[in-house]
Amino acid sequence: MRLRVDPLPLPELAFADVVLVVDVIRATTTAACFLEAGAEALYLTSSLETARAFKDQDVVLAGEEGGLRPPGFDLGNSPREALEAPVGGRTVVMSTTNGTRAAHLAAKTAKHVLLASLFNAHAAARKALELATEEVAILCAGKEGRVGLDDLYTAGVLAEYLLLMREMSPEDGARIALTLKRAYPDPLEPLSLSAAAQALKGVGLEADVPFCAQVAQSSAVPILSGRVGEALIFKRAGKAS
Amino acid sequence: MRLRVDPLPLPELAFADVVLVVDVIRATTTAACFLEAGAEALYLTSSLETARAFKDQDVVLAGEEGGLRPPGFDLGNSPREALEAPVGGRTVVMSTTNGTRAAHLAAKTAKHVLLASLFNAHAAARKALELATEEVAILCAGKEGRVGLDDLYTAGVLAEYLLLMREMSPEDGARIALTLKRAYPDPLEPLSLSAAAQALKGVGLEADVPFCAQVAQSSAVPILSGRVGEALIFKRAGKAS
Repeated sequence: MRLRVDPLPLPELAFADVVLVVDVIRATTTAACFLEAGAEALYLTSSLETARAFKDQDVVLAGEEGGLRPPGFDLGNSPREALEAPVGGRTVVMSTTNGTRAAHLAAKTAKHVLLASLFNAHAAARKALELATEEVAILCAGKEGRVGLDDLYTAGVLAEYLLLMREMSPEDGARIALTLKRAYPDPLEPLSLSAAAQALKGVGLEADVPFCAQVAQSSAVPILSGRVGEALIFKRAGKAS
Repeated sequence: MRLRVDPLPLPELAFADVVLVVDVIRATTTAACFLEAGAEALYLTSSLETARAFKDQDVVLAGEEGGLRPPGFDLGNSPREALEAPVGGRTVVMSTTNGTRAAHLAAKTAKHVLLASLFNAHAAARKALELATEEVAILCAGKEGRVGLDDLYTAGVLAEYLLLMREMSPEDGARIALTLKRAYPDPLEPLSLSAAAQALKGVGLEADVPFCAQVAQSSAVPILSGRVGEALIFKRAGKAS
């Protein structure tokens, strides 16, 4: 079984099997939180316009523009807010920049696409191994085409859990992510240093960073289950055996 | 002064100032070796066909296809071979895959493009600081769109030298590269573990790996000096003051 980490969503990447998409600050953390709060489905859209087109349906619109809630949206992209949101049984349409782009790239070729974060790290790693037959790839979203310390660190945490549970062959990206993970005993440190955290600080949302740094708090793993138009539909994966 | 490391040549990247392009196994190591051997100029071409079009001129054709010397070429892409090659005063046309792609991307927007490796690491770092006014970026070539442990480690070595000489602000990629550098005391270890080294082993050229792991053996730094057609012309940078 191969273990692979891609630090950035290069358009030419192709995936053979299972992909764990990581945008730890904040999209993939928030996605797990919406499922924890009881959402029935998440629609991931790559633009605010596509998200707004769902407005007439009975959905909750969540997303961000420069870190903040876009005009006309019900919610922003804060995981703290998502966990408390009254979304039980409802569909949440999420529009975010980097995480959505990575998820769409993975969805082009992968057999299974899961959304992973520190918050659901144990459950996501277990589910990936349950599904994989030849490869687990961890695809980091980065931030506007630049590598993210937060995402690659999280990939290292996931890689370490995967290697604990299964003998796997790590390639270059996985070795880099593991080295990073082992260099930072406290997840809050690499997350706080990242450009993503600095940007949140700029808009007064820095309290989301320690939330995203919590490890293995949720068993909710969003798994790609279909499409509606260009939106990707994620639902809660069945409990890993 | 900003210090930036990009682990992969994403097509959308733009550069403001100085870029150090790194393809340590083997293109940027070999480039320094050709200059050490007295070559007057290096032409970097992105395809074997473009390189072959120079054949009628008085040039030396060097390059690789699957690691080996392509048919009709004078030399392969081995730095050991380059250092001993009779290229004094001549132009060497180099066609390689990943390093050339990264150099062409950097050349689109950067003010200055240098080719860096462990072999010329001290000289390349000094020259970058001599030229830079706002940012030094280290652009890793990777291998067919995948991140390379060898290149990102080398970026970490360069980043450490740069930070020693100048107070700079490292962003996410630079922090990752520095962490990697500090985790491996012996450069031969990360280089040997890389996919690039494994591929060389597959074609019997593994002796190039310890050569590429030598640090600061050369003061020859190739600097972008012009273009001929789509080929980039590199010459030896003047001695850093």
